[in-house]
Amino acid sequence: MPHISRLADNLPQSAIRALTPFAEKAEADGVKVYHLNIGAPDIKSPQVVVDAVHNYKFDHLPYSNSLGTRELRQGFLDKYYNKLGLHLSMEDILVTTAGSEALDFFFQITTNPGEEVIVFEPFYVNYNSIALKYGIKLVPIHTDIREGFRLPPVQEIEKAVTPRTRAVLISNPSNPTGTVFDKQELLAIAGICRKYDLFLGSDEVYREFCYSDKPIFSVMEIDDFDQYAIMLDSVSKRYNLCGARIGTIISRNKEVMSLGLRLAQARLCPPVLAQAATLAALDAPESYFEETRSEYIRRRNFTVAALNRIPGVFSPMPNGAFYTIAELPVENAADFCRWLLTDFRLDNQTVMLTPAAGFYGTKGQGLNQVRVAYVLEVPELEKAMAVLENALKKYNNK
Amino acid sequence: MPHISRLADNLPQSAIRALTPFAEKAEADGVKVYHLNIGAPDIKSPQVVVDAVHNYKFDHLPYSNSLGTRELRQGFLDKYYNKLGLHLSMEDILVTTAGSEALDFFFQITTNPGEEVIVFEPFYVNYNSIALKYGIKLVPIHTDIREGFRLPPVQEIEKAVTPRTRAVLISNPSNPTGTVFDKQELLAIAGICRKYDLFLGSDEVYREFCYSDKPIFSVMEIDDFDQYAIMLDSVSKRYNLCGARIGTIISRNKEVMSLGLRLAQARLCPPVLAQAATLAALDAPESYFEETRSEYIRRRNFTVAALNRIPGVFSPMPNGAFYTIAELPVENAADFCRWLLTDFRLDNQTVMLTPAAGFYGTKGQGLNQVRVAYVLEVPELEKAMAVLENALKKYNNK
Repeated sequence: MPHISRLADNLPQSAIRALTPFAEKAEADGVKVYHLNIGAPDIKSPQVVVDAVHNYKFDHLPYSNSLGTRELRQGFLDKYYNKLGLHLSMEDILVTTAGSEALDFFFQITTNPGEEVIVFEPFYVNYNSIALKYGIKLVPIHTDIREGFRLPPVQEIEKAVTPRTRAVLISNPSNPTGTVFDKQELLAIAGICRKYDLFLGSDEVYREFCYSDKPIFSVMEIDDFDQYAIMLDSVSKRYNLCGARIGTIISRNKEVMSLGLRLAQARLCPPVLAQAATLAALDAPESYFEETRSEYIRRRNFTVAALNRIPGVFSPMPNGAFYTIAELPVENAADFCRWLLTDFRLDNQTVMLTPAAGFYGTKGQGLNQVRVAYVLEVPELEKAMAVLENALKKYNNK
Repeated sequence: MPHISRLADNLPQSAIRALTPFAEKAEADGVKVYHLNIGAPDIKSPQVVVDAVHNYKFDHLPYSNSLGTRELRQGFLDKYYNKLGLHLSMEDILVTTAGSEALDFFFQITTNPGEEVIVFEPFYVNYNSIALKYGIKLVPIHTDIREGFRLPPVQEIEKAVTPRTRAVLISNPSNPTGTVFDKQELLAIAGICRKYDLFLGSDEVYREFCYSDKPIFSVMEIDDFDQYAIMLDSVSKRYNLCGARIGTIISRNKEVMSLGLRLAQARLCPPVLAQAATLAALDAPESYFEETRSEYIRRRNFTVAALNRIPGVFSPMPNGAFYTIAELPVENAADFCRWLLTDFRLDNQTVMLTPAAGFYGTKGQGLNQVRVAYVLEVPELEKAMAVLENALKKYNNK
């Protein structure tokens, strides 16, 4: 019999999805499950997107340009990126099959098998899945919940650089922590990249979900950094089009984009219906983002306050995305999350959370932490927090 | 400055797309270019697809299951694969982001970096691009235009097996040759796979484009072969939905599908609008395929006869897909193809063909060959063939 590849031994089952069968079982039994486990919000997409799909004229669907349609690339520049002040030209942008593919291309473009990329833990789990596919090693630098997951001092980061390091990858605002890194932090990392000849990849898919009074500082705004900066982006969260599968990879480094083009050709093109939907989304009024932000600020404020009111629970106040990491008064959050789904009911309700250990690259970290996605309306979040408080009491008195 | 990865030195620019700037220049100058260079046909998709997109109810687009929606997987089984007699169950199918991703998963699942996959040249160029991404070596076995690109005897194929061989990959019907491999040939390869513990990947995306009186023999029909067989499929050609980006990977080997699921989770989900469009396409009447086949038989018969009437040109008679490889009376077909676009005009018309050397893994093979995609209506093909005949005369008298 043939043997499958060694990837089978290394590539983990998605931590988020490992609990899904238990949630499905509970729901099949008629239990109401509050899903705070996954970044799948209930916010509507802009109406222009729905209209564009319903009016899309076609009698067959040919391939588009591998880079994405010219119209969509131009639209991204004129209607979005250059309005943010990023000053990009048509050679700097490539449309990808969502942020997932932008990340995939980033690893392939910057790093050879056996070489290293520095990340800050906790980090988005698929950074690890994609790195594993290419035999690339992630080198995690620890950030601490008690310090709001801010970056450590430059000297700490420099210690992780080896002769095999090729890139640094950050998520800003961060999934899973919600931390927004500021200009100072970005410039500090940029300094390290210049010093050691490293690319800086910045995953900015939560850009519009920034709750401080100023917008995030993008990697593309760093001066004299064109050869180093690679921005990874997606419309999934921005317009609640997770299922569309449209993202971008952006860089002013011509070698990066030339290899990006060849990788793009090797998969022919991004999905064409979704490109049309995205082109329409770019016409969403600014009020769409403002309303979404206000709604998430309400949800965040409620959730973080409610978490910190529960005895033994600690959550920092994140400034972006729609997640927070909370420390729970339990030893093994994975066991607790499973128990919530299999055993605990309050008025026939329970809550689904994501154990945070899977977001850490260092074994033994984050064992008592969960990621909470505040993707429901406040009245629902209220009920979910009541469930959580009761569950913790009962779990610790087992 | 940071250095991009070694992929940049290895990954070729798409041979098909390298000529595109010259074609665009000709078209900008008002020249009519007959595009026989790419598998992008003019056939309409089933009307049910258009209707489904226009009536798709949504107010946002959430992720689907990483395997594809349950509805689409069940639809593929009930309305397509099991009608073909393949007897598949829900655990055997995974929806991919088109055939490109099915191929990508195939290489990752079966073969480690540094190991080998046997292919038959000429082969689809992206087999090579994807293998390169993963550090996998393609071992090409030659098939000959004068023998209609049929497979060589078993002993010839066995010579290519080494201790590092992990899989054999065929395209049936074949892109770029149009050859349909018969049951005998499939069983012969299956015997080799059993003997040496190799997976057999069969790229069957042109399945419905088979012009003999019986349907193709699928890898999934081989008896007692469940642990070896992996079928790679796509709706791109079948319903002329190349831009949708929906395909499948199919196997009854549970380890293969388990790793496939984890690879699928690492990119979240296939495009959701396209999944809805594809679900509708499965309701296309059988007459849709019959009409498409009749049309392509007319086009093939005309094209192959016309090619063989041109002095010095030889094309075998392919039984499938919508391509044929033709030998031309030139030394360097790549130069000729470029000259067609830059220099030759007949009544302000020219023709675009794909040089075939890029489909060969062995250097120096196929230099005087082109791939002709007969994707236009017969009256257009007539004009294109007249252009080609005149061009060859003029090129050889330069």
